[in-house]
Amino acid sequence: MTVEFGKERLEGGVRERLFTVGQVPGVLWTSADADGSRPLVLLGHGGGQHKKGPAVLARARAYVSSCGFAAAAIDAPGFGDRPRTERDQQFVTEVRARIAAGQPALEMIAGYNAEVAERAVPDWQATLTALQALPEIASGPAGYFGLSLGTGIGVPLVAAEPRISAAVLGLAGGGALAATAARISVPVEFLLQWDDELVPREAALSLFDAFGSAEKSMHANPGRHAAVPGYELDSSVRFFARHLG
Amino acid sequence: MTVEFGKERLEGGVRERLFTVGQVPGVLWTSADADGSRPLVLLGHGGGQHKKGPAVLARARAYVSSCGFAAAAIDAPGFGDRPRTERDQQFVTEVRARIAAGQPALEMIAGYNAEVAERAVPDWQATLTALQALPEIASGPAGYFGLSLGTGIGVPLVAAEPRISAAVLGLAGGGALAATAARISVPVEFLLQWDDELVPREAALSLFDAFGSAEKSMHANPGRHAAVPGYELDSSVRFFARHLG
Repeated sequence: MTVEFGKERLEGGVRERLFTVGQVPGVLWTSADADGSRPLVLLGHGGGQHKKGPAVLARARAYVSSCGFAAAAIDAPGFGDRPRTERDQQFVTEVRARIAAGQPALEMIAGYNAEVAERAVPDWQATLTALQALPEIASGPAGYFGLSLGTGIGVPLVAAEPRISAAVLGLAGGGALAATAARISVPVEFLLQWDDELVPREAALSLFDAFGSAEKSMHANPGRHAAVPGYELDSSVRFFARHLG
Repeated sequence: MTVEFGKERLEGGVRERLFTVGQVPGVLWTSADADGSRPLVLLGHGGGQHKKGPAVLARARAYVSSCGFAAAAIDAPGFGDRPRTERDQQFVTEVRARIAAGQPALEMIAGYNAEVAERAVPDWQATLTALQALPEIASGPAGYFGLSLGTGIGVPLVAAEPRISAAVLGLAGGGALAATAARISVPVEFLLQWDDELVPREAALSLFDAFGSAEKSMHANPGRHAAVPGYELDSSVRFFARHLG
């Protein structure tokens, strides 16, 4: 499959192009004058988010502006511009009820994320192949960033995909993630929120422990699930620059 | 007490001056052309080390060269150029025997470090007063870096000393450290070695948990006690630049 480009805009020296690869809608960010092979960071969004959510946009701009990399995001199945199934709606209703009732939600979330990942991993692999066929990306190295749902997809993706050579992951645990993480050997920066209301501390620590990577660095910060501090974006810029640059 | 300067040398644009404040021997690093108020990072060495150990030197040069800060180290009581007591010798013999026998050593280390800290905290406070009387440091903000023994001293120092406004600590736990850490409210970057043979993981996690700081960030990396990766020096440069710069 090849990339079909749609609407395009330019802002602050960053070129943003909507695209599709087969049925999968995505966005590609490059510097306005990108020309020749460069590293590509794949950006997985979190649950309830999409390919142009504010956290994804901020990262895309940082990786393009600070590192001269390309960045790309796609909508996960059931999110953004992709159709929601009855199962997707049912999950949202059930997980909200559990959270509202103060019941543990991690295993329900991990189970649903694993279902999404089964479809999202081949989507990412086709997208990576199609993007690396573009002259402005070509044979450059690839990294992956994704937290929460983005890690539920990212762990099986990075385990399966030898073209991805560094990953920033976190805010996840439970299910079969640890077993899959053990098969990952590339450098990982792992984010943990110390007061995460969705992911119990022990589950996140166990997932970090499980990565097979010789270089893995866990950054734990106070606050709830969505309160990752801004300086972690800056840290990930240096992590990717070190491993992809 | 005032600073009495001794031997001086210049290397790669960094001016290094030996000094004493009362009975306490130290080293001050500044840029060759330092002039006017600037931030000062106090560098506490680890156990078995001293004010000019390789880890201290590398940090001093980085903080001076990358940030334009001043950096200073002193020998802790019983280390470097300071006299060893019978108690110091006894501790070294006993802790080596425990480690060799594969017995837990943390509480013995934490107890000894607390004794050293009782003398080292006033040493640091007098040193800070004397260094801030120099025109090339003056009223600039102060930070503290120290791991292991440097944290055994640093936790009570930072808790007691309102002039210190950011600290990099870690590789420690046990004893009364957590109770003292709860009184610290300045930003802390905390290093944990995931396979630390001297500090059990749970003891280090408990110490991180105890800090009263609204901004605290734990960086956990694989490897044993002394194997902190080089990129953590780079991370501490940015931490101090953010809080003292």
